[in-house]
Amino acid sequence: MDIKKVAKDTTKVLSSYLTYQAVQVVASQLRETNPGLAIWLSGFSSSGKIQDGEAYLQEMLQENQELAFRIMTVREHLAQEVVEYLPEMVLARVQQENMAHQRRYLERMTQLNVPQASPHPELTTDSEPQADDTGV
Amino acid sequence: MDIKKVAKDTTKVLSSYLTYQAVQVVASQLRETNPGLAIWLSGFSSSGKIQDGEAYLQEMLQENQELAFRIMTVREHLAQEVVEYLPEMVLARVQQENMAHQRRYLERMTQLNVPQASPHPELTTDSEPQADDTGV
Repeated sequence: MDIKKVAKDTTKVLSSYLTYQAVQVVASQLRETNPGLAIWLSGFSSSGKIQDGEAYLQEMLQENQELAFRIMTVREHLAQEVVEYLPEMVLARVQQENMAHQRRYLERMTQLNVPQASPHPELTTDSEPQADDTGV
Repeated sequence: MDIKKVAKDTTKVLSSYLTYQAVQVVASQLRETNPGLAIWLSGFSSSGKIQDGEAYLQEMLQENQELAFRIMTVREHLAQEVVEYLPEMVLARVQQENMAHQRRYLERMTQLNVPQASPHPELTTDSEPQADDTGV
């Protein structure tokens, strides 16, 4: 398990994801201030090339350098605001989701086993008259 | 700019990415210990469903719960080992890549302008004989 490589690859993925989020922020701002450019940005970003943030920005710099620099500024701002919360949030989420998967799995196993343990589930309805009694 | 939402979405993406990395680790271990299962895991994981880590694990739990729990254990371990380094690494990467884009952009602008400023680039080769002199 090469932790260093995983950390490096994860950093790359995160950096690309923040570029994608920065594009969303800039696109949302442009829809208010320059709808034509917003449509152009949306078209430029839709062909899947945003999967690689650096290649995307490289290409954007040749098409519209002002917009490219704006996206870079926003992604750096996003990184500054967001990254410090990530360690706690990611670890908590992974642990919570693992527990949720385990709980759901155990619940399913229990439900599957109940009919086997009690082949006559109709016998368990004995308690219903008692419930009626308390209502009287 | 909804920083809280960006942090939450980023956490989800990271959690799914660590699930993907955990599958790579387990697949690599299985290639040594149980090649048949490694091939099955590779097939199960190849249809793009690993994009959503939780849906992937949910489905895996129904196919092979032992493997699902193993992947969960590995991804929690990866999270514990990796997340603490991410804030510094991600911020550094974004800043470095931004600077690299700016430098490349300025270099390209300069190269585009050089032929206009100096229409005879062959004059700049004067320094080559001096390099030979030092070699004697």
